[in-house]
Amino acid sequence: MTAETFQRARRPEQKLRRQDAILSAARDLALRDGVRNVSLAGIAARVGIHKSALLRYFETREQIFLELTAEAWRDWAQALHAGLDAAGSARLDATTASAAPGRAGLVADVFAHSFGDRPLLCDLIAHTPLNLERNVSPETVRRYKMTSLGVVSEAAALVQRVMPELTLTETTEFVATLASLAGSLWQIANPGPALAELYACDPALAQACVDLTPRLRRTAEILLAGLIPSRSPAES
Amino acid sequence: MTAETFQRARRPEQKLRRQDAILSAARDLALRDGVRNVSLAGIAARVGIHKSALLRYFETREQIFLELTAEAWRDWAQALHAGLDAAGSARLDATTASAAPGRAGLVADVFAHSFGDRPLLCDLIAHTPLNLERNVSPETVRRYKMTSLGVVSEAAALVQRVMPELTLTETTEFVATLASLAGSLWQIANPGPALAELYACDPALAQACVDLTPRLRRTAEILLAGLIPSRSPAES
Repeated sequence: MTAETFQRARRPEQKLRRQDAILSAARDLALRDGVRNVSLAGIAARVGIHKSALLRYFETREQIFLELTAEAWRDWAQALHAGLDAAGSARLDATTASAAPGRAGLVADVFAHSFGDRPLLCDLIAHTPLNLERNVSPETVRRYKMTSLGVVSEAAALVQRVMPELTLTETTEFVATLASLAGSLWQIANPGPALAELYACDPALAQACVDLTPRLRRTAEILLAGLIPSRSPAES
Repeated sequence: MTAETFQRARRPEQKLRRQDAILSAARDLALRDGVRNVSLAGIAARVGIHKSALLRYFETREQIFLELTAEAWRDWAQALHAGLDAAGSARLDATTASAAPGRAGLVADVFAHSFGDRPLLCDLIAHTPLNLERNVSPETVRRYKMTSLGVVSEAAALVQRVMPELTLTETTEFVATLASLAGSLWQIANPGPALAELYACDPALAQACVDLTPRLRRTAEILLAGLIPSRSPAES
């Protein structure tokens, strides 16, 4: 075996390992410092490679984070399955089917925790339309969108299995709205040092801060309770 | 009159004029290019002063935009008054009071347009907790928060006058949720060039795009319809 064939054989595997190391460094830094504070140079330094070498694996800083967002969405969908699959099959059995408010409460609870337990996903959601999707190639953003749309559809179908009185359009609305809110509320719930100090010492301002999971749970309950009564006459 | 007293007398007025010119330049550029694309150097160039001179009037780029956000909130509150004041007094007269769905429809409509007609406010809302509030002094962020909290309270009181069956806590929840959504949905509704082109030519992706005003109107209706049925037993 020549040196060249040896290198060729190793290349795809090496490339994947390197990509994983880059994603993992970006993930650690984003969880520690917030997505906004992580630079390409910072990621490269943590991996121990030069910035220019890093750009052989990813187009931009934003592509790295878009990759992490797609990964976080897939993990989030798993959490929804874990929380709702049992309820989705239980409702098929008429004798065990619980009342609508109870099922809505379960969906609200599972969704609120699915976001509240995933700070990196929530942080990334706000950055996605604002920054990430704007600084990658059309092919990368297309691939990302296919993933995120697929996950939203999957989540909407899950909610509809638990609450079959809702249409798929309605459960999709519910999922998309709650995901957007999770992104923006997380930013409010995690203020910078100056604002955090103000919240701590000024009760008049503290009301502006948000406790993410309970707030998402309450909004999810309101949305689920409002979908049917707010149907236009043509729909109901 | 010595040159010095002449200068002193002119200074506050000059300072205000200069501040206005800076805010106006930032406003124009943000409306044209999006908040994310406006730099301190770009604002300074448009005003025709050096960047260092600009920093005699504002702490940071973010303080300029936080100032514009406060201004946009005040203008937004005026629009709510224009749309809802009449309905708020009409409902006191039992003979002209309309049914709850009609009043909720009016509130939803006025709120959806109050955001849909204000692209700069919507763009700024997403940047506020993410960037603006993190890059100014504690005193500046405190002043901004007092303004935004005051405007949210004012809006919540207005909604409650039209829909007195809701509590002030509930109408505050409604206002804060819809404002957060307006910020995040505006970013989705106004994608960058690469994503806009994908939406135009790929029907599978186009469903991810959002038409801001109708979407906000629908979500507002869902929230208003859901607030009372989702009350916990202790509240209702």
